[in-house]
Amino acid sequence: MVERIPILKMGNFLLLSIQVDMHDQLALDLQEDLTAQIVKHRSRGVLIDISALEIVDSFIGRMLSHIAQVSRILDAKVIVVGMQPAVAITLVELGLSLEGIATALNVEKGMRRLEKMVDDDMILEPESGEARDISVEAGD
Amino acid sequence: MVERIPILKMGNFLLLSIQVDMHDQLALDLQEDLTAQIVKHRSRGVLIDISALEIVDSFIGRMLSHIAQVSRILDAKVIVVGMQPAVAITLVELGLSLEGIATALNVEKGMRRLEKMVDDDMILEPESGEARDISVEAGD
Repeated sequence: MVERIPILKMGNFLLLSIQVDMHDQLALDLQEDLTAQIVKHRSRGVLIDISALEIVDSFIGRMLSHIAQVSRILDAKVIVVGMQPAVAITLVELGLSLEGIATALNVEKGMRRLEKMVDDDMILEPESGEARDISVEAGD
Repeated sequence: MVERIPILKMGNFLLLSIQVDMHDQLALDLQEDLTAQIVKHRSRGVLIDISALEIVDSFIGRMLSHIAQVSRILDAKVIVVGMQPAVAITLVELGLSLEGIATALNVEKGMRRLEKMVDDDMILEPESGEARDISVEAGD
């Protein structure tokens, strides 16, 4: 039924909750919508809630990795939250370790972790943070 | 595929995003889960995102009203956010005015509105607010 997965803006971050079976087109649309929203709102982080998923296959694993890679290039961190224990076991059994994807137990913990990651980033690279803002302004 | 709609805790509030076709059992489970979470986290407000819904029928309309009524009894406010324009038109045409349900354009606006509603409540009824906290503590 759903044709687009809603992306909710929460301050500097975006939140999306995956509740439906992913198929190729939905995954492509999600990546497109998400990158557009990251750029539009200059979001620094993305929280992906997968607590509704009881099964994760290699397709979703790859999609999450892909989203994380693209987001990183756009200077946004990705945190996957709410993973069910059985899903974590399946991922390891499938050989999908979700490398480069941070996880947290729930949205609140994920949000705090994202805030910390973004703060650390600003302290470590104040110059690049400013440079990014300026280049985005120039692009408007 | 999804058997439960995830309810995300965000501070004092709960957030849920309806993305799938609702049927009787799913609606009942949602009401049950939501009331349990409101009591567990002593939540003061519930944000229901329906931006993924392109069609709303009288079943969903009634479910939203029911959730709002039950939440009010548990001293939590409900705000429906992200309603698409076509959905608003359909609701009026169906004669479902969602009475007693506050709405907001998006999650951020809804969150601010909930914060205001809860603050106003505390100012108007400081006694009942305290009484509620004490009675909940005693129940633990």
